Amino acid sequence: MRSPQPHRNGGDNPFHSTVSLRKLRRFNYLILVFRLASFSSSLASFVFMLSTSRAAANSPRWYHFDAFRFVVGANAIVALYSLFEMVASVWEISRESTLFAEVVQLWFDFGHDQAFAYLLLSADSAGTALARVLKGMDTCKAWNAFCIQVDISIALGFVGFLFLGFSSLLSGFRIACFIIKGSRFHL
Amino acid sequence: MRSPQPHRNGGDNPFHSTVSLRKLRRFNYLILVFRLASFSSSLASFVFMLSTSRAAANSPRWYHFDAFRFVVGANAIVALYSLFEMVASVWEISRESTLFAEVVQLWFDFGHDQAFAYLLLSADSAGTALARVLKGMDTCKAWNAFCIQVDISIALGFVGFLFLGFSSLLSGFRIACFIIKGSRFHL
Repeated sequence: MRSPQPHRNGGDNPFHSTVSLRKLRRFNYLILVFRLASFSSSLASFVFMLSTSRAAANSPRWYHFDAFRFVVGANAIVALYSLFEMVASVWEISRESTLFAEVVQLWFDFGHDQAFAYLLLSADSAGTALARVLKGMDTCKAWNAFCIQVDISIALGFVGFLFLGFSSLLSGFRIACFIIKGSRFHL
Repeated sequence: MRSPQPHRNGGDNPFHSTVSLRKLRRFNYLILVFRLASFSSSLASFVFMLSTSRAAANSPRWYHFDAFRFVVGANAIVALYSLFEMVASVWEISRESTLFAEVVQLWFDFGHDQAFAYLLLSADSAGTALARVLKGMDTCKAWNAFCIQVDISIALGFVGFLFLGFSSLLSGFRIACFIIKGSRFHL
């Protein structure tokens, strides 16, 4: 028979609870690694795109193009968000409780992961389409360094998206655990 | 105390099993509606983009542009996939079992939902970026009908993405149920 109460914080069996805590901690370390990776990639992508402005005086600028502005904005948002989530993750690992109330934290993480993963992918795809158009025109012949920096920035953005997508799978699993069992613990 | 066995097919309590079945059926109807909506939108998007070729003889064609080819391909894939998933969904509602083995079906649905949602968003973002570039050039002044049809096609693609994203949330929840409880039933 199953108990009708939700299975909060690993149950009342102390052994079960310890195993749960260890598994949860491993899970949280994995999330932290993904957050760190997505933070570094999107920060690098942001910096690379901004650094195109340090080229020759009459070279094209990223802010002259809608799609590149979108790439810069999306990467900045994702970098800030990942930084915040790293803090929340370290907090959870060290104090064994979430930064906000559990239900708020889980929905916050999952909702933002999903939305920002789609945002970043959308920005990078738009950036790629524009970069391909510029390659077909004279811009990239005259300003090759600009195009290469843009390409690197977009590629780094895609890497950031990949890690954010992985984080969103993990936070989706946590919220599903919470809905099904009333706790983010999956054991 | 919790039973160590996984909670398969709604448990052994016949009342509980009936309630689960009813809830599962409602859940499946919701998925079917999302599948139908994403099928219609992506098929419409596909047809709209192809129909740009029926304009004046010297008008630009969708297949002259990488990004528009990507939009056509992604929408065709999503339309076919949604059609297949509608069949699988009707099968599950009418026979109360999945088309493939349960575990295969759940991972198949979730994996493809995620991948194709990202694919479609990426295609539509690239298409949007290109459409904006064309608007800034002379193409849209000379061939206004072409640009309008492209815009409609891309907008319909975004609608398809939205419904595919909702489906992916539901199929993600089903796979999480399966991982946590050993069954796609969430009650």
